[in-house]
Amino acid sequence: MRLITVNATVTASNDKDAAALRARLTAQGTLLVNVMSAPGAGKTTLLTRLIRDLPDVKIGVMEADIASDVDARRIESAGAAAVQVHTSGMCHMDAGMTAAAVDAMEAPADLLFLENVGNLICPAEYDTGAHLNLMLLSVPEGDDKPLKYPLMFRQSDILVITKTDALPFFPFDTAKCEERAKKLNPEIRIFPVSAKTGDGMPELENYLKEQTKSLRENRNP
Amino acid sequence: MRLITVNATVTASNDKDAAALRARLTAQGTLLVNVMSAPGAGKTTLLTRLIRDLPDVKIGVMEADIASDVDARRIESAGAAAVQVHTSGMCHMDAGMTAAAVDAMEAPADLLFLENVGNLICPAEYDTGAHLNLMLLSVPEGDDKPLKYPLMFRQSDILVITKTDALPFFPFDTAKCEERAKKLNPEIRIFPVSAKTGDGMPELENYLKEQTKSLRENRNP
Repeated sequence: MRLITVNATVTASNDKDAAALRARLTAQGTLLVNVMSAPGAGKTTLLTRLIRDLPDVKIGVMEADIASDVDARRIESAGAAAVQVHTSGMCHMDAGMTAAAVDAMEAPADLLFLENVGNLICPAEYDTGAHLNLMLLSVPEGDDKPLKYPLMFRQSDILVITKTDALPFFPFDTAKCEERAKKLNPEIRIFPVSAKTGDGMPELENYLKEQTKSLRENRNP
Repeated sequence: MRLITVNATVTASNDKDAAALRARLTAQGTLLVNVMSAPGAGKTTLLTRLIRDLPDVKIGVMEADIASDVDARRIESAGAAAVQVHTSGMCHMDAGMTAAAVDAMEAPADLLFLENVGNLICPAEYDTGAHLNLMLLSVPEGDDKPLKYPLMFRQSDILVITKTDALPFFPFDTAKCEERAKKLNPEIRIFPVSAKTGDGMPELENYLKEQTKSLRENRNP
């Protein structure tokens, strides 16, 4: 496992840097998925499950964290290549930081995840260069989160509702949550899952496999 | 309920502003507690429980949020005075923003809570002028959070471990979490509670009552 430390990019042109990174990854056939959520929503658990369930997909993971390398170690134990990115205290990843992490990967992946810093606010403000933004909302956090963190829901292509095995113990109304998310973002795709029991995982996995395949097939139109 | 919108303070002297606000609140006999956590850890639920359990304490709440006023409405239903503070997208409260919120309160409280923006990172970087920093970590988030968000644990006087009624359903080791928190901050006081069942609440409530009383008694030494 490699560990790199990145600082916020000095350039003011984050959108331009993001577009350049996205074009470069498209050309090499790598689908980049930016994974965002509050702390403890289950990003690493979801990724380790995806790695185990999709042995035929070449998966790589870039683990952004303020401190520690616990997540990157979990990813490597699950069998995928991981780079640990320390953000020097920064609360988000930008396109320049993401490009530095991509450069630190030992080999190109077909499906590359950026596990962003655990934060429902700041990461939504920066285009990282990803093809898809995937956010997690865990059942214990509550179904009111779209009302309180609207930008994150607007910027996400995929909403994964995690820890659905905990639904009996928490007052979480899945239909109401989906309605609130769709009101902010009618195009958002929603996958309720339990990475623990596997419930709902095949639908998410099939979608990610399709998107990975589609990127590789369409990169030279 | 009042609603105010605040912008990040332009001054570079946040620490000075914070000290001035703290002195002003001490002189008027108001204990200010800055409540911080990740989204969905149960800040508002804890505060509504404290309001109901402590009818003899004059409690006020300043609810900081990027959007919505759902939390301030919950506080008012519980019977305390509330000000809703919209942070203009900001991921934290600083001392100037907090002072503006204090000014918007209709009457001074003896125990005044600032419910900060749901975020384990940015709020830890700013002194709001509070006498005590209180952070929540909920059981579903996991016992590894001190490793990943060390500054928040270092800056907090009180750690409230919430949703302990969910302990049977999540792999959360309370002893390990406490050990990790104390390693970062040996002085931190830890209260495991369930605001739902009431378990552990009396210890936290007694401590807050003592601190409120002590501030009022000692303000003119």
